[in-house]
Amino acid sequence: ERTGDAEVVYGAGKTPAQVVELLRTLHANHPGHAVLATRLTAEAQELVAVELPDATVDPVGRTAVLGTPPVSSGTVAVVSAGTSDAPVAAEAATTAQVFGAGVDLITDVGVAGLHRVMGVRERLAAADCLIVVAGMEGALPSVVGGLVGVPLVAVPTSVGYGASFGGLAALLGMLNSCAPGVSVVNIDNGFGAGVFAARVARQSVPAEVKER
Amino acid sequence: ERTGDAEVVYGAGKTPAQVVELLRTLHANHPGHAVLATRLTAEAQELVAVELPDATVDPVGRTAVLGTPPVSSGTVAVVSAGTSDAPVAAEAATTAQVFGAGVDLITDVGVAGLHRVMGVRERLAAADCLIVVAGMEGALPSVVGGLVGVPLVAVPTSVGYGASFGGLAALLGMLNSCAPGVSVVNIDNGFGAGVFAARVARQSVPAEVKER
Amino acid sequence: ERTGDAEVVYGAGKTPAQVVELLRTLHANHPGHAVLATRLTAEAQELVAVELPDATVDPVGRTAVLGTPPVSSGTVAVVSAGTSDAPVAAEAATTAQVFGAGVDLITDVGVAGLHRVMGVRERLAAADCLIVVAGMEGALPSVVGGLVGVPLVAVPTSVGYGASFGGLAALLGMLNSCAPGVSVVNIDNGFGAGVFAARVARQSVPAEVKER
Amino acid sequence: ERTGDAEVVYGAGKTPAQVVELLRTLHANHPGHAVLATRLTAEAQELVAVELPDATVDPVGRTAVLGTPPVSSGTVAVVSAGTSDAPVAAEAATTAQVFGAGVDLITDVGVAGLHRVMGVRERLAAADCLIVVAGMEGALPSVVGGLVGVPLVAVPTSVGYGASFGGLAALLGMLNSCAPGVSVVNIDNGFGAGVFAARVARQSVPAEVKER
Amino acid sequence: ERTGDAEVVYGAGKTPAQVVELLRTLHANHPGHAVLATRLTAEAQELVAVELPDATVDPVGRTAVLGTPPVSSGTVAVVSAGTSDAPVAAEAATTAQVFGAGVDLITDVGVAGLHRVMGVRERLAAADCLIVVAGMEGALPSVVGGLVGVPLVAVPTSVGYGASFGGLAALLGMLNSCAPGVSVVNIDNGFGAGVFAARVARQSVPAEVKER
Amino acid sequence: ERTGDAEVVYGAGKTPAQVVELLRTLHANHPGHAVLATRLTAEAQELVAVELPDATVDPVGRTAVLGTPPVSSGTVAVVSAGTSDAPVAAEAATTAQVFGAGVDLITDVGVAGLHRVMGVRERLAAADCLIVVAGMEGALPSVVGGLVGVPLVAVPTSVGYGASFGGLAALLGMLNSCAPGVSVVNIDNGFGAGVFAARVARQSVPAEVKER
Amino acid sequence: ERTGDAEVVYGAGKTPAQVVELLRTLHANHPGHAVLATRLTAEAQELVAVELPDATVDPVGRTAVLGTPPVSSGTVAVVSAGTSDAPVAAEAATTAQVFGAGVDLITDVGVAGLHRVMGVRERLAAADCLIVVAGMEGALPSVVGGLVGVPLVAVPTSVGYGASFGGLAALLGMLNSCAPGVSVVNIDNGFGAGVFAARVARQSVPAEVKER
Amino acid sequence: ERTGDAEVVYGAGKTPAQVVELLRTLHANHPGHAVLATRLTAEAQELVAVELPDATVDPVGRTAVLGTPPVSSGTVAVVSAGTSDAPVAAEAATTAQVFGAGVDLITDVGVAGLHRVMGVRERLAAADCLIVVAGMEGALPSVVGGLVGVPLVAVPTSVGYGASFGGLAALLGMLNSCAPGVSVVNIDNGFGAGVFAARVARQSVPAEVKER
Ligand SMILES: Nc1ncnc2c1ncn2[C@@H]1O[C@H](COP(=O)(O)O)[C@@H](O)[C@H]1O
Ligand SMILES: Nc1ncnc2c1ncn2[C@@H]1O[C@H](COP(=O)(O)O)[C@@H](O)[C@H]1O
Ligand SMILES: Nc1ncnc2c1ncn2[C@@H]1O[C@H](COP(=O)(O)O)[C@@H](O)[C@H]1O
Ligand SMILES: Nc1ncnc2c1ncn2[C@@H]1O[C@H](COP(=O)(O)O)[C@@H](O)[C@H]1O
Ligand SMILES: [Mg+2]
Ligand SMILES: [Mg+2]
Ligand SMILES: [Mg+2]
Ligand SMILES: [Mg+2]
Ligand SMILES: [Mg+2]
Ligand SMILES: [Mg+2]
Ligand SMILES: [Mg+2]
Ligand SMILES: [Mg+2]
Repeated sequence: ERTGDAEVVYGAGKTPAQVVELLRTLHANHPGHAVLATRLTAEAQELVAVELPDATVDPVGRTAVLGTPPVSSGTVAVVSAGTSDAPVAAEAATTAQVFGAGVDLITDVGVAGLHRVMGVRERLAAADCLIVVAGMEGALPSVVGGLVGVPLVAVPTSVGYGASFGGLAALLGMLNSCAPGVSVVNIDNGFGAGVFAARVARQSVPAEVKER
Repeated sequence: ERTGDAEVVYGAGKTPAQVVELLRTLHANHPGHAVLATRLTAEAQELVAVELPDATVDPVGRTAVLGTPPVSSGTVAVVSAGTSDAPVAAEAATTAQVFGAGVDLITDVGVAGLHRVMGVRERLAAADCLIVVAGMEGALPSVVGGLVGVPLVAVPTSVGYGASFGGLAALLGMLNSCAPGVSVVNIDNGFGAGVFAARVARQSVPAEVKER
Repeated sequence: ERTGDAEVVYGAGKTPAQVVELLRTLHANHPGHAVLATRLTAEAQELVAVELPDATVDPVGRTAVLGTPPVSSGTVAVVSAGTSDAPVAAEAATTAQVFGAGVDLITDVGVAGLHRVMGVRERLAAADCLIVVAGMEGALPSVVGGLVGVPLVAVPTSVGYGASFGGLAALLGMLNSCAPGVSVVNIDNGFGAGVFAARVARQSVPAEVKER
Repeated sequence: ERTGDAEVVYGAGKTPAQVVELLRTLHANHPGHAVLATRLTAEAQELVAVELPDATVDPVGRTAVLGTPPVSSGTVAVVSAGTSDAPVAAEAATTAQVFGAGVDLITDVGVAGLHRVMGVRERLAAADCLIVVAGMEGALPSVVGGLVGVPLVAVPTSVGYGASFGGLAALLGMLNSCAPGVSVVNIDNGFGAGVFAARVARQSVPAEVKER
Repeated sequence: ERTGDAEVVYGAGKTPAQVVELLRTLHANHPGHAVLATRLTAEAQELVAVELPDATVDPVGRTAVLGTPPVSSGTVAVVSAGTSDAPVAAEAATTAQVFGAGVDLITDVGVAGLHRVMGVRERLAAADCLIVVAGMEGALPSVVGGLVGVPLVAVPTSVGYGASFGGLAALLGMLNSCAPGVSVVNIDNGFGAGVFAARVARQSVPAEVKER
Repeated sequence: ERTGDAEVVYGAGKTPAQVVELLRTLHANHPGHAVLATRLTAEAQELVAVELPDATVDPVGRTAVLGTPPVSSGTVAVVSAGTSDAPVAAEAATTAQVFGAGVDLITDVGVAGLHRVMGVRERLAAADCLIVVAGMEGALPSVVGGLVGVPLVAVPTSVGYGASFGGLAALLGMLNSCAPGVSVVNIDNGFGAGVFAARVARQSVPAEVKER
Repeated sequence: ERTGDAEVVYGAGKTPAQVVELLRTLHANHPGHAVLATRLTAEAQELVAVELPDATVDPVGRTAVLGTPPVSSGTVAVVSAGTSDAPVAAEAATTAQVFGAGVDLITDVGVAGLHRVMGVRERLAAADCLIVVAGMEGALPSVVGGLVGVPLVAVPTSVGYGASFGGLAALLGMLNSCAPGVSVVNIDNGFGAGVFAARVARQSVPAEVKER
Repeated sequence: ERTGDAEVVYGAGKTPAQVVELLRTLHANHPGHAVLATRLTAEAQELVAVELPDATVDPVGRTAVLGTPPVSSGTVAVVSAGTSDAPVAAEAATTAQVFGAGVDLITDVGVAGLHRVMGVRERLAAADCLIVVAGMEGALPSVVGGLVGVPLVAVPTSVGYGASFGGLAALLGMLNSCAPGVSVVNIDNGFGAGVFAARVARQSVPAEVKER
């Protein structure tokens, strides 16, 4: 087990009882760590809340966490435009925390409102790794990546309709970003971005030492 | 024939001789108008220059114009990030002029350099119609469309590689723009955008009258 | 806030209570304007009707409008073939009105019945901007664009089955239109077309002044 | 061998010598019939002209015919918009003739010029089968199919650029035609359409007997 | 109204009440003809049966016919592999009848059982037009088209899973058929194939006169 | 090194000199085996013939073999329709031989000519593994797989045009084959099919022992 | 009927009553064989259990088997990563058994845990044919195929989300496997892989005779 | 300018003279930095070598570097399978160096040869960021990501044919990697991966301090 990495239950396609059982067992086997469950249905969230009262359930990110996350090291900034992309941003933020990074959640930052992006520039620059979540045309990572030189993981979301083709438009947009230093994960994969960014943040030199 | 609309020769797949012949004939039949030829090969451009010395040949936009464009009415701003997208931007600009609009060509405006976009905001707002040309992720129209409320026609270009899929990424990005009031034409279709924007500009009330 | 532009609530993925709350708040903050809500479920439409009796709810276009639209300026003609495309046409028409344009709604105009298209030619030519809504093969914009020189925004719809691929066939058809001066918005995006066309219409010189 | 069907050499990927050899052999084995070769390169056309002076070579349709086609029976009308689609229309026309049908070739008929379509309505209605060739948005079959009730085979062409995706846009448009009674063949497949239409025309009752 | 063509109600997206109302009205306006309704839900079929006892409802093809089809002329053979493709074959057969052709329905004919195909060869050759319905790999039209020289309309169905992509595999297979004289309609479009084939059959010379 | 498996040089993207050098070295290191080179350009074939006179060069399959293949065990039948698919069939046949299987090459077997397929039925049934090569609609594996119960590897080829999309239509057709026991390799991958089939054939009990 | 091949009912789209009836009839007609039903809904599984108490119902693989499978000959190893892919692996295993092969089911073997793959190497090498089931990126067949030289049939599953596009990513991955001797079946097609592998295993020389 | 980031010339579509001119100018303006040019044609590489003798030209990675890269900080390991992917790996390695990271280039590491992967495990674990380059099925990142917990950027390459669709198969495989902590850049985008990884490595705490 690598320092900082947590045990995880992927809840999609599992019954509420299976999720509870897996959380309980993994927690028993790894008592000093946090265990994370993702993609929980409303039913699974409810059963977890009832059966595992010590667990923290997040209905927005559809996650549950059992046990104490590690002391955080480094900072991941999670940036998104707002309500529609919130579940993916929350999944990313919770994952980053459980995997050992501090999180700065920055919402309401959209491409069509540049002043808001400009306004959070300092917070963006202060992070060790950025997770930028966006649906539709997926342009936000290009704009953010043009402002600061922090490693940036882009997460396309399936938010949109018609020619968004379930997140394909955002995915392609991000892969073709004209800002260098942008990497991408699967559509709606807040979890993968969270693991990646936490690993980067954990190993970064403290902010007061870093020059940027 | 509608006021302001010009005769056009689509040069793709035509021999230099056919292009020259068509320009000459259309000009003879419509002596009071300009005739526009697009998508000219280097060979066609050369033959036109030799055979029709009165024509204006643009090697960047691969166009030739024979005869005098109409007195312009209204303004189309053509915005692009730079060298790679220049041919499409030039085709759009020349078309808009030949179809009766004044043109303000704004280059070096990219998503990853927001200060430059901000710096041309007044010129953008002063136009009657915007043509925004972009390849790769095609994010520029969203950024521009978030700044000003001018009707905006986006032109995706085939500039890019890999998952740009010949302009598909830019096309999908533009169709999914989160900025309202963005419409889109075919990949590399500077001509179509130029016709559309000129029609909008020609019929607009003069800038000094307009409130914005 | 730009003259004529309205506040908008995008209803997809929001609960009825959230929609009502957002309409109420935006209306309170912008008392002199109309607020538009789109993509409302039947449940949201019902709750809006009960909670906001001053709102106008349109079950066809799935919209609600609270407050008084601006005095209209210019004319947008919204053209469609009929029943299946009606929701998108209605969304476009309501949006154009709320954004300050007069609307001429022209239905029952299909590619396979040319006499009907011919019969409305004068109404088409009299508009400042056309919105042409079509599903299946999406050919109507080409036919209409060949008849009149008015700026034309095409809206592909997801109506169809099999190789229509959720509106992709219509979208591609419109992007490849052989009639110049056709621009396109996302599949089923009546809202985007409405905003675009209203902006064009609002800034156009009055019909009696225009030459066409 | 079925009455009216001819022997065919598919020239793509064959050397000029192979094409000549195959034409010569098939003609020797079927002296009473015509033999058709399609998709001939310029080199193959030249060698056929030199080696087989009795053959009729068509540089537009890239075909060669050796031997006498059967006495024609019935009429196939081949309709297209013009120069770009001419090679496919010519391949279809020659094939239909070699397979035993009379051909009425109707060019310059485009969607964006309805008066021309209207003007040939009688010729369209008089045919036993229609072949409608179109590239770009592929809308012509819908318009023609809405005018007359004659069986109609649509041929999409690869003419276009960008989002035409090599004829895909036209193909999808034709498959989704709102005019009933439209069937479709592969992109650029004038040959297949010609065989199909000739078979329909050959078996049709003579025009003076038919009611329509 | 063209001889033999019927009035049609496209039931998809219509309420049972709307379907009944449309059938009733069209029948009243065209008393001498049959009216066809397609794509009827179970609910619509039930209401039609109750409200219009003279209608013939087919639960397999999901159609209803009100009024007397014309005296049939010519023969359409509808060929399919069996149960899964039966709804599309039935829609095609009923449509062909209502549009004035006699129908020979041939089932249980699959590519993987050639003896059955061979066994019906005479019936295939005796038809004026073939409709071949097939899902999955869509190979049946190639096999049938290699056996007989009758005009053949292929109908891909959405039967299959995984890489059948909702009928796309069958559609592409049919468009690329190596048997000449195969044309194709949209996925699951038994209606379109029926109209097309009926038009071909109606105008064909009687079988005893035809040579084949 | 597994019994029967050979060393292989993948010639695509290698210079003639690199190919010769690799063949020479591998042969020196494995003197008792054959070494196979595939995808050779005309230039590479020529240089191999000059520099390695002991090598067998096949211009159809674009392969070269240096050294003696193993004594063959079992039989692979390679089936294809003819000239266009011949390069892929030859690559498969040579590979199977070099990997230790006997090969029965069966050409001129097409879907549209069933009698030929029927005529080779005994040879098909006598093989231990079948490789069926087909382009365009890729229907041949379904027909062959319906005749005999021998393990069958299908190879789609990029032969075709338009909606064949470089072999995609054939690939999808084969993946959706209604004949059970059909597996598929990449487009034009005669090599992979040859390795697979040789492994199956080598381990099969001799034909005289087998019941089928 | 070929030795070892069984009768099969494809349960998708069939009612529980139809499934029971087909199983009963096929079993009566082939009393000496096993009959297999696949893709059974929960309802069909229940009715089979009640009506045909001699049948073996597998809720994981959604299959039912009536009658005695043949004495097995040869071994098929079915390899998968675990719970999500279990239904497809079970369908493959049951099919292989019913078609006459012995089965070695190997689970919990994932690409991201190489030690587990290494640990089962002997069992993999001992099989006559491998079926490797994997979703998401579908990389397992390449890893397994690099370890042992046994014929390998890869089954992509629809497990995944976002850019897995319903199994397309896994399918493409497997088709492009850099390990030679990998062939592929349709997404989720455990049945087809089972038939193929059983045929290979049945005809293989016994393991003690084989050299590897 | 951010510490460590370099000036870059994107050579695609530029003439040799333009490349030389840009390198010279950027170097003059940023004398203390290295300037990188990528995607250089053979002609551009030659002219750079002649005109700028101080530049380092890499014909494999098609890059040129003018001026001294910064003192490196942290380590990027660039992993690839070998010759075909070498150009992309070299572009990534050179970029990472120019952007300030030390580089450990690890070649000959393929999915189908696990022992080699195992053998470099310590070098992989010692890096601050991994760049894994792979074409065809793109499985290498999953295997590497399952071995070590280092942040991993995957680069799909366009190496392959047929269903690799120009790198799409590898791209999709990487996006769906079952190993968490894998992020992806555009097809063939070694440059983007190099910038990203260098930023991560530069800010990482020195290896001797890090726990892993
Ligand atoms: N332009 C064409 N497109 C598609 N198929 C064709 C074409 N021309 C000929 N063919 C087919 O090719 C066959 C001859 O192929 P081959 O034996 O290779 O010359 C004919 O029987 C036709 O079915
Ligand atoms: N199953 C079907 N598939 C495609 N088009 C159909 C079908 N059934 C009816 N139609 C078409 O739908 C039209 C009637 O549409 P509507 O007026 O909406 O009922 C008819 O004229 C037919 O052209
Ligand atoms: N899971 C499956 N996937 C694909 N084909 C299947 C499957 N199960 C059965 N089949 C095929 O379906 C045929 C029986 O279909 P049916 O007559 O509709 O029950 C069998 O002969 C098999 O070839
Ligand atoms: N190989 C590459 N792939 C993608 N982008 C690149 C590549 N090389 C350079 N760039 C980008 O291209 C920009 C320079 O473009 P230009 O000004 O056209 O030379 C740099 O700032 C990089 O972001
Ligand atoms: Mg967004
Ligand atoms: Mg750009
Ligand atoms: Mg429509
Ligand atoms: Mg056209
Ligand atoms: Mg079928
Ligand atoms: Mg073939
Ligand atoms: Mg997997
Ligand atoms: Mg690779």
